[in-house]
Amino acid sequence: MTREHERRSACPINACAEIFGDRWSLLVIRDLMMRGARSFKELASAREGIATNMLADRLTKLAEAGIITAIPDPDDGRRVIYRLTEKGIDMAPIIRELAVWATKHEPVRPPGHMKELMARSGARDFVAEVRRRWEDPTLEPLLPPLRPR
Amino acid sequence: MTREHERRSACPINACAEIFGDRWSLLVIRDLMMRGARSFKELASAREGIATNMLADRLTKLAEAGIITAIPDPDDGRRVIYRLTEKGIDMAPIIRELAVWATKHEPVRPPGHMKELMARSGARDFVAEVRRRWEDPTLEPLLPPLRPR
Repeated sequence: MTREHERRSACPINACAEIFGDRWSLLVIRDLMMRGARSFKELASAREGIATNMLADRLTKLAEAGIITAIPDPDDGRRVIYRLTEKGIDMAPIIRELAVWATKHEPVRPPGHMKELMARSGARDFVAEVRRRWEDPTLEPLLPPLRPR
Repeated sequence: MTREHERRSACPINACAEIFGDRWSLLVIRDLMMRGARSFKELASAREGIATNMLADRLTKLAEAGIITAIPDPDDGRRVIYRLTEKGIDMAPIIRELAVWATKHEPVRPPGHMKELMARSGARDFVAEVRRRWEDPTLEPLLPPLRPR
């Protein structure tokens, strides 16, 4: 993705704001990273209630940005599943710091297991746990999986 | 800010997406945190070219979220300046991880001094440097200040 010339500036923070600075992208990344979501149906079942056209749009943009990739579903080659790329899984430290900050300052309720994991493990351990599950998708996800409605 | 009931979910990542998930908020936070920006004029002069009505809207929302506060300008009591709150300065680890990620994966050019600082210092040192300047605004900012046009 060499689209530097299209960007508003060469600032790294600006790149982030342009790529996932919207109300939905981080949630898609969260569900792929933490809940073992793979299918469109699973991603569409996130609690926040993303509309399917919005989800489709975000998936396209995240794929264009090289953060996710669509691959044939090993269980049904006619379907695709979504997977974080190396660039995508490298967002784990960002997701962690967002969670740490919001848990401290906002009236949120992180899932019990997550709070525990973040409290007992430093950033490095957390990222290692996330990455281990990315490398081996048969492992149980860190958060309870999404249940398609 | 106890607006949990208005949120789409109790998830910490969702709170972040709702509060600063847009194309501009992170840039405002960046300039207050890193460039020593204080006035509306300074913030409006960011390279990315934010429109003044958009900037005004973002400042209002960030103040409502408790991330920034408007205080009388000590040099001219008729004007206000903007300052990150404790909650706002606590976003330093997020800003750092965003910068680390984008510098690795995007065709960006972080200012030389910043690259050096991030390379030689861990997350903790970086946050300490940022916080020191927040506590004592007379110190030189980490990045060259914005010059109002």
